[in-house]
Amino acid sequence: MQEEPAPEVEDQDLTIVPCNLRCIEAAAGRLGANVPPPMSSTSQAPSAFIPLEPSADEMRALLDAVRDRVVAHVSSLPAQPAADVEGAADLARKLFEAEPPEAGIPAAEILDLLFDRAIPKSFNTAGPGYLAYIPGGGVFAAALADLISDATNRYVGVWQAAPALVQLETNVVRWLCGIVGLPAGSGGYLATGGSLATFTAVVAARRERLPADFLKGTLYVSGQTHHAVAKAASLAGFPAENVRAIPWDERFRVQVDLLAERIAADREAGLTPFFVCGNAGTTNTGAVDDLDSLADLCAKERLWFHVDGAYGGFFMLTRRGRQAMAGIGRADSVVLDPHKGLFLPYGTGALLVRDAAVLRRAHAAGADYLPHMQEDPGFVDICEISPELSRAYRGLRVWLPVKLHGLAAFRTNLDEKLDLALYATQALKSMPGVEIVAEPQLSIVVFRLVRPGLDPETLNRLNRDLVERVNARQRIHISGTVLGGAFVLRICVLSFRTHVERLEQGLEDIRAALAET
Amino acid sequence: MQEEPAPEVEDQDLTIVPCNLRCIEAAAGRLGANVPPPMSSTSQAPSAFIPLEPSADEMRALLDAVRDRVVAHVSSLPAQPAADVEGAADLARKLFEAEPPEAGIPAAEILDLLFDRAIPKSFNTAGPGYLAYIPGGGVFAAALADLISDATNRYVGVWQAAPALVQLETNVVRWLCGIVGLPAGSGGYLATGGSLATFTAVVAARRERLPADFLKGTLYVSGQTHHAVAKAASLAGFPAENVRAIPWDERFRVQVDLLAERIAADREAGLTPFFVCGNAGTTNTGAVDDLDSLADLCAKERLWFHVDGAYGGFFMLTRRGRQAMAGIGRADSVVLDPHKGLFLPYGTGALLVRDAAVLRRAHAAGADYLPHMQEDPGFVDICEISPELSRAYRGLRVWLPVKLHGLAAFRTNLDEKLDLALYATQALKSMPGVEIVAEPQLSIVVFRLVRPGLDPETLNRLNRDLVERVNARQRIHISGTVLGGAFVLRICVLSFRTHVERLEQGLEDIRAALAET
Repeated sequence: MQEEPAPEVEDQDLTIVPCNLRCIEAAAGRLGANVPPPMSSTSQAPSAFIPLEPSADEMRALLDAVRDRVVAHVSSLPAQPAADVEGAADLARKLFEAEPPEAGIPAAEILDLLFDRAIPKSFNTAGPGYLAYIPGGGVFAAALADLISDATNRYVGVWQAAPALVQLETNVVRWLCGIVGLPAGSGGYLATGGSLATFTAVVAARRERLPADFLKGTLYVSGQTHHAVAKAASLAGFPAENVRAIPWDERFRVQVDLLAERIAADREAGLTPFFVCGNAGTTNTGAVDDLDSLADLCAKERLWFHVDGAYGGFFMLTRRGRQAMAGIGRADSVVLDPHKGLFLPYGTGALLVRDAAVLRRAHAAGADYLPHMQEDPGFVDICEISPELSRAYRGLRVWLPVKLHGLAAFRTNLDEKLDLALYATQALKSMPGVEIVAEPQLSIVVFRLVRPGLDPETLNRLNRDLVERVNARQRIHISGTVLGGAFVLRICVLSFRTHVERLEQGLEDIRAALAET
Repeated sequence: MQEEPAPEVEDQDLTIVPCNLRCIEAAAGRLGANVPPPMSSTSQAPSAFIPLEPSADEMRALLDAVRDRVVAHVSSLPAQPAADVEGAADLARKLFEAEPPEAGIPAAEILDLLFDRAIPKSFNTAGPGYLAYIPGGGVFAAALADLISDATNRYVGVWQAAPALVQLETNVVRWLCGIVGLPAGSGGYLATGGSLATFTAVVAARRERLPADFLKGTLYVSGQTHHAVAKAASLAGFPAENVRAIPWDERFRVQVDLLAERIAADREAGLTPFFVCGNAGTTNTGAVDDLDSLADLCAKERLWFHVDGAYGGFFMLTRRGRQAMAGIGRADSVVLDPHKGLFLPYGTGALLVRDAAVLRRAHAAGADYLPHMQEDPGFVDICEISPELSRAYRGLRVWLPVKLHGLAAFRTNLDEKLDLALYATQALKSMPGVEIVAEPQLSIVVFRLVRPGLDPETLNRLNRDLVERVNARQRIHISGTVLGGAFVLRICVLSFRTHVERLEQGLEDIRAALAET
């Protein structure tokens, strides 16, 4: 940074009210002899003070301008391409800016850039045609919640600073514990997503089950487990080789007998098995491990039983989900992603633990400059059970949508997703040359094109082409993955905006793309 | 969770459009023979589908209702108490809710609860009288940014999914690197706050400077360093005793010679010193360590030089801040909290690193189900340089306020904070019985009441009473801390809403409280 230039005042929407800092001197006069130094050190040429607080009218005008763009955008989501990144790299290059602007620019210019240029050049993760990776959607009510949280900006890291607001977040965590069937005494916190929630699960398990010299501790996942678990272990200090990937069965579920064998072998070798991750819906195929058998094994072996429900956990709101995920409530810790199965915008995950005290043991830390923490176990200081001190008020973005819409709305939307995945599967089965690689266990179906006599490499190339051809139609956007060396296509139905009409269009596009391949 | 009850449909603002899930069957008819199962497994009594997408008119109505409450709230901030938590515990108890609601409730009821009851019972961290802990404020433009991010909900964890939006966040990180004077080749990412940013700094340093068996690695802080560093070390797996707290001098700055001695002694004892944290503004007093000397020492000893600028770093935008923090640009990593010195709402921290490649080495992780990552070093996949995969679009809440207001607005506001701290110091010096414990190095002044002949315990009690008396007037809210066994009072000026008029009121209140003590 160089010396600050004199601020340029340009034509702009936002009124700049010049006000000399030295107005303080006049106030100082009222203090009598105790005049502060004349502040000539501020800068060589005194800068005019530029307030950061818009007037009420300006706030209204700004918000109304954003409202118009946001509502137009959301309303047009069905008409937008499912993904459009053509020219996006060039645009990104043009937007490169090495220095922050000294002077502000008009709000309209900012909104034009965002809504007309930057946002459209993207995977349309908010739209109904997004069936790739793990969709979410982004319910509008969550945007209202963040607007409220940001503008009122209360501090919820410490209970005493905003007791009622913290209570609403505590309620949310209790709701989530109930949804997955954790017992009284359970607790948890809202993270930014599954990765950090998983990391704090590993930290809690490390602290509860391993000595201070923990580097012989081993973790067990299936070969289908999300890489967030290995990444969490790495962040927590475990060598990569301490994470054991156990083979899966024909339904992509971990083979519990092989897991038990590996645990025994590791103990024999002087290692300390301590953490097992079961999947409540894998990212590749939506596979749900046999959670009850894993719970039995973990109980017998005294291991921490973690369940990754980042994608699938909220299907516990449905009868079919509860059947598929029986045993999840026996876990020591569960990760959920409200920005997936609760349709929130990106940025909210949850770690739930069977025994709320483990989080406090891992995270509580006093300091002289902090306010008093609560003794009453009903009153939670979020900073004492999670890695953050200052933090956004994440609770409201879960609480407000659930209060506004009611849980039944989320339940029926999730049920619809299960239905749609079955519907897609039936349709795919009717397409010549299509093999269903994984039937839906939740809302993901995996398939591929097969042609007799083709070598695996050529077949993979054809399937990669197939994804491209489907996505080029821009009505749906799907993604691929690799299973046992084979490139396969996934349809993951999880947006609250995806209904049967869009799915039918997508199936049409798949049919057409198959005909071309 | 029990079996779902039939959803109750109540009178409410939000229209519920009943639509039977079985409309899928009709669509299925068009597929000919490939009709999916009749989905009778969904529930015994079929639930009516409840959409989660409001119509455009409903979105407008919801947003306008929120706008009115938010603008009224922000406009009335100066008239609100600086803190009011009377009856807050009772309110929290009343808000306890063990189960999530099945049916939604009217938006007006939700807004009444939040704005009339829950939000007011709090420390008014958004208001002009908030001088406690580390204030922030929460610029309105950031709330607009989150509204846009949430409602449009694009995915910015992977470059390819939203290249232009990711570029804006990359620009923000580059701006921040420029502000603290890091060279070309530096980089970083936006975290949720200082704690997680600090954690990722420790992880990066651990990976770069220590073997896989890292438990002999030792970290060095001053006794004035924020506990986030010790917590980060603990999360990263280091035993608590590996964090060495070095004594401070009369200005609360680390004693570099004692640090050097301790490093030598630890090496002698077979430990592996690797990480030194310098303070660019401590939480207690705003003390700035001699960063140039620390940089020299770290270079000589080949240690990772981290600077905690969570509170103070953004004063680098001012001439006086740059003088105070000379040497910060020599750091290997710097933590900044835009939700402090850039006046954003809670939820945005930043980790900046001298060599952008270290973050990639610590965090990159491939998976078959992920999209392609970028090779061009100008194009950053945020998931490859940070712990998260799915994440909120934090970049926009920094980018939009800076673009709308221009950097000069932030600079002049920060300069005003420095002025106000000096002004408060002069005024406090004029009050009989007040001792200045720490003159401002940035925007914090620390003081206490002294009375000849009183024992330390009584004096501490008097000073605790003094905080209570000042805060009871509800025009300002200040906090205390402990320095060398003495309870002391802090005034931390950091809100963009705090101007000289409010500070004068606060000084009046301190004078009146002193007269009563």
